[in-house]
Amino acid sequence: MKIGIIGATGYGGLELIRFLHNHKEMSELHLFTSSEEGVSFSHKFGHLTHIVDHTLQKIDDEQLAKLDVVFTSTPAGVASKIMPTLLHTGPKLIDLSGDFRLKDRQLYTQWYKKEAADEKALAQSVYGLSEWNANKIKVAPLIANPGCYPTATLLSVLPLIKEGLIDATQLIIDAKSGYSGAGNKPSQTTHFSEANEGFSIYKVNEHQHIPEIEQSIAQFTDVTTTITFNTHLVPMTRGILTTAYAPLVGSATEQSLVHCLQQVYANHPFVRVITDATTVNTARVKGSNYCDILVRVDQRTNRATIICAIDNLVKGAAGQAIQNMNIQFGLPETTGLDVVPLFI
Amino acid sequence: MKIGIIGATGYGGLELIRFLHNHKEMSELHLFTSSEEGVSFSHKFGHLTHIVDHTLQKIDDEQLAKLDVVFTSTPAGVASKIMPTLLHTGPKLIDLSGDFRLKDRQLYTQWYKKEAADEKALAQSVYGLSEWNANKIKVAPLIANPGCYPTATLLSVLPLIKEGLIDATQLIIDAKSGYSGAGNKPSQTTHFSEANEGFSIYKVNEHQHIPEIEQSIAQFTDVTTTITFNTHLVPMTRGILTTAYAPLVGSATEQSLVHCLQQVYANHPFVRVITDATTVNTARVKGSNYCDILVRVDQRTNRATIICAIDNLVKGAAGQAIQNMNIQFGLPETTGLDVVPLFI
Amino acid sequence: MKIGIIGATGYGGLELIRFLHNHKEMSELHLFTSSEEGVSFSHKFGHLTHIVDHTLQKIDDEQLAKLDVVFTSTPAGVASKIMPTLLHTGPKLIDLSGDFRLKDRQLYTQWYKKEAADEKALAQSVYGLSEWNANKIKVAPLIANPGCYPTATLLSVLPLIKEGLIDATQLIIDAKSGYSGAGNKPSQTTHFSEANEGFSIYKVNEHQHIPEIEQSIAQFTDVTTTITFNTHLVPMTRGILTTAYAPLVGSATEQSLVHCLQQVYANHPFVRVITDATTVNTARVKGSNYCDILVRVDQRTNRATIICAIDNLVKGAAGQAIQNMNIQFGLPETTGLDVVPLFI
Amino acid sequence: MKIGIIGATGYGGLELIRFLHNHKEMSELHLFTSSEEGVSFSHKFGHLTHIVDHTLQKIDDEQLAKLDVVFTSTPAGVASKIMPTLLHTGPKLIDLSGDFRLKDRQLYTQWYKKEAADEKALAQSVYGLSEWNANKIKVAPLIANPGCYPTATLLSVLPLIKEGLIDATQLIIDAKSGYSGAGNKPSQTTHFSEANEGFSIYKVNEHQHIPEIEQSIAQFTDVTTTITFNTHLVPMTRGILTTAYAPLVGSATEQSLVHCLQQVYANHPFVRVITDATTVNTARVKGSNYCDILVRVDQRTNRATIICAIDNLVKGAAGQAIQNMNIQFGLPETTGLDVVPLFI
Repeated sequence: MKIGIIGATGYGGLELIRFLHNHKEMSELHLFTSSEEGVSFSHKFGHLTHIVDHTLQKIDDEQLAKLDVVFTSTPAGVASKIMPTLLHTGPKLIDLSGDFRLKDRQLYTQWYKKEAADEKALAQSVYGLSEWNANKIKVAPLIANPGCYPTATLLSVLPLIKEGLIDATQLIIDAKSGYSGAGNKPSQTTHFSEANEGFSIYKVNEHQHIPEIEQSIAQFTDVTTTITFNTHLVPMTRGILTTAYAPLVGSATEQSLVHCLQQVYANHPFVRVITDATTVNTARVKGSNYCDILVRVDQRTNRATIICAIDNLVKGAAGQAIQNMNIQFGLPETTGLDVVPLFI
Repeated sequence: MKIGIIGATGYGGLELIRFLHNHKEMSELHLFTSSEEGVSFSHKFGHLTHIVDHTLQKIDDEQLAKLDVVFTSTPAGVASKIMPTLLHTGPKLIDLSGDFRLKDRQLYTQWYKKEAADEKALAQSVYGLSEWNANKIKVAPLIANPGCYPTATLLSVLPLIKEGLIDATQLIIDAKSGYSGAGNKPSQTTHFSEANEGFSIYKVNEHQHIPEIEQSIAQFTDVTTTITFNTHLVPMTRGILTTAYAPLVGSATEQSLVHCLQQVYANHPFVRVITDATTVNTARVKGSNYCDILVRVDQRTNRATIICAIDNLVKGAAGQAIQNMNIQFGLPETTGLDVVPLFI
Repeated sequence: MKIGIIGATGYGGLELIRFLHNHKEMSELHLFTSSEEGVSFSHKFGHLTHIVDHTLQKIDDEQLAKLDVVFTSTPAGVASKIMPTLLHTGPKLIDLSGDFRLKDRQLYTQWYKKEAADEKALAQSVYGLSEWNANKIKVAPLIANPGCYPTATLLSVLPLIKEGLIDATQLIIDAKSGYSGAGNKPSQTTHFSEANEGFSIYKVNEHQHIPEIEQSIAQFTDVTTTITFNTHLVPMTRGILTTAYAPLVGSATEQSLVHCLQQVYANHPFVRVITDATTVNTARVKGSNYCDILVRVDQRTNRATIICAIDNLVKGAAGQAIQNMNIQFGLPETTGLDVVPLFI
Repeated sequence: MKIGIIGATGYGGLELIRFLHNHKEMSELHLFTSSEEGVSFSHKFGHLTHIVDHTLQKIDDEQLAKLDVVFTSTPAGVASKIMPTLLHTGPKLIDLSGDFRLKDRQLYTQWYKKEAADEKALAQSVYGLSEWNANKIKVAPLIANPGCYPTATLLSVLPLIKEGLIDATQLIIDAKSGYSGAGNKPSQTTHFSEANEGFSIYKVNEHQHIPEIEQSIAQFTDVTTTITFNTHLVPMTRGILTTAYAPLVGSATEQSLVHCLQQVYANHPFVRVITDATTVNTARVKGSNYCDILVRVDQRTNRATIICAIDNLVKGAAGQAIQNMNIQFGLPETTGLDVVPLFI
């Protein structure tokens, strides 16, 4: 497989490179850039010295058309300009940004404050939540790879909503992320001395992943809901942990919730239903494509607490993107992704 | 004022010492221990060399009776054994542990898995939430200093519940704390290599501060409620941030919530009602007795998001304890506590 | 005392404010800016809300002349333009930058790549190493406050060189600093995700503090030497630890070195000669003006290892600046600086 | 290949497991314990759930004899008791502890305060510095895998000493390590709240890796020297950076030093001679077996500064151990180790 990455210098791109390096089906890797043509990649990223000594190439539709897969890992508003012209020219397309996730173009403009993608391209894109949409992913020309927060949220609550065990209309999700989610662009917020040793909330009730979660709940469970969703910054680099709260429905119990999760994910190698609360920790999935889910019921309030831990750069971005590529090409989902989490 | 600390070697004790060092009314400081009699305090804690070169004294009721104030900063189940015999022997008593917080002795045993304090002593203890209970604190012989999580939670939600602006019966609090809240005793959980770069949940729905919060909501607002409350560990040393969620009641708006908080805390120097979401960050209160509160309303769901940031060791422990001492002795609340947060 | 700060928005400036807030002789504080006139200081720095609600003033020589002290905490090349016109107009002047430290103007230009300060002003400036230069500091109109690395290095090696116990001609200093030393300006190097969990060397053999250390060794000990000096970045916010290596001279022993240090610093409250190696840790001086020194002799090589820990923003910047102000005004050196290190 | 690990629960053991999981020649993995027989490994280490669900086996010489390789990753004094009886029973032996590194048994006892290994077994052990000792490693029945600090130090200074470019008799090494080097046993020193945000020196001039470095310099360069060597703790989990200082010899220049390193390591895939100082950072080798070396000459003092960065758990322990196993079995050195460093 000949693989191209547009936006390789971002953290999503770097993680794609890290995993593709060990993907046995990759024959060629091409790195594209809009602004740094000719730059040596390992000169820019010293950790890749002697490993990925590629030169950054100019984005060129003819070159791209010769590839089998093209990933875009670009800021909002970029992939929507690149992908439509590449559609059906040859390569499978996988966009890691939010440009093709929201089917409602007005919603995109409202939350992203940018123009939405072309309607026809959007209509052909498939939401790449690997464990829930594999049949469509297999045949899709263009994958909208899920956001980091939606991945953690959806994988942990979808089975329970679909099975009617929790009340999605009262769903509250309190999410926490390491700083790598903020990307590689320096700012006062991400300045080490000001980020270190502080915990903060950001975009209170206004994160652009909110409509993505609501759309996906509707898509996969037929339940329409308006959620409360908040995001916090943790002084660490990698990891997302979401804590979701929802009332139980009817006679649901902790046992029935756990059982539901175990059934749904029985044959999905990257989702682990955890029963020991002490092991739900972003460190347990660090550097890997695993997604750890724990559910507990508070009998005092009859509410479920649903916790999910992922590595935001892996299952929340590059890892799931490669998982989707594997699905598209009929490869085992774990190809190139079967690594042990770092833990320490 | 002659001041004694029992349990000075814990983090609460160390913070008492740090602030008392600059408390202009303190004339004598005595450090007591049950197990390390004769040990040089600055030998044990190098950072105190030439500053607090005291020798640890054996706990001795006669010595203690000569003091003006005695703080206990001890593990659960210790102060309940020490304080009753000191009651009315002379010194004002301030307990930083949970031993005198729960008025219902059965509740204490249920959540702390220990025998509750003596009923008579318990009856005379007053809950030391400085901004809400000053009149009782003034005359109390024994203060039950609030827990760290309850302090952040209560200061931010009490005004809104009391004013009838939010529905406390659907209150969900998602709390996050730095590792200093776990105390100074090494364990696998607090081992640097395993704590660093990981975010985790702990004691899911089972934290012993739950009944303390419920009791205080009832005490200060006359509303009875069962809350959902969860706690997470942040890989940093100091700081608690609580994110509380509750539906608005009637015609309440973001403006009315903000106004309510501003009114209630207008004359309370340590509580800051914040309106700029980007400054609600535990780093902004680090090392200080400040408590920063932000409230936002999500109009999509008509729920309030109420955020509170404190330093768990200061406003959540030693700082509030000294604030209570100041109240007991008729001093300005800020005496010895008027320091600028570190921020960086 | 009426005090002004030019460059209050940097980390040195913020620390000046933090300590001056508790300086009992300060009657007025004025914050000056070259570019943010009219900006509310606490709006910019949320942690100062209700504490320092000053408005940033335009730099104005007339206003400055009315003050008792003016601190400049500005990037290299700025104070050299401001201070000369303020000299002898009224206020005592204390510059925290490197602009007045090097007496040799060519050396300044060589290491700082900027034009050196005016020769006359430079001639009147006094190097503010408080423990070594108090007599001159007392009467100086302009203090060149020492750099962070030179402070740690000089305080620990000067006594031993002066007493002829170590061979300064073979002095090697390996220094390590937290990120706050890099200032408040975001960059790729200080971007949290890239700084966190990495330890690196920078400016190999090229740090501009090298000539400052050599000049001061000559000034205070009459020994001329060329040192090897390197600097590293530690993924933490505050703290410098220097490890210096030098051969013993003649019959010097560990005992004689320790004794020398103890004698020299016997009456200096902020310098602590440590004998227990386990307590030499930047955390033990965090947030304080203390300087901890440990010396050990390796009998296998007959070399001394001399370690020094300071808080780079306090003893290495704002704390020592205030200490110098105290000396200038005949106040006890500890005024406003007598705080307990945070440790945790 | 059937592979056994004794001491799998330590950090060295966990890293062996992480890399062996992707080692294509491994057919069986057995985990042995002296005290936790029957314990489920993934129950103990949640991050290995569904990945390494092995049960810990009792150490049993008969079982061990059936294996192709046995690693010991045990505290000092344990492997010296286990390995001699396994010698020549079948498996190749690789010890990650210090038990077989020092050929002089008295030296071992002096620095480790324990009884040295059996003389005969010791005589057959080969020091596993992969890039320098491959010919002997190939045929050795027992590998003494190098210590983390010696690996970084030796790889960076050996070529320069051997080539006669630097004066090893005046060699000073200032080393810095993340906390994972301290192992997995909780203590006050490694307690998160006390380790975090502090930088410290430890074992001043007394680290047990000193004789290992001196012995290896003698072994590989025929130069006898007594070094000064110190170790510091960095508040991060992984990584060692060593900064070595030595005078140049004769007409050596920075160019000749760089050239020497490049020549020596031209065909060694894991050693990267770096010329851009800004990329020498432990983060650039994190999680990988790479070893990055930079050399700079200070013309003012005619001394070389030689910097080396490795991941202490990989090239400094488990990675090099697997590299040695690959050498023993005639596999490419990179088998199972060809991963991209994490960087972020």
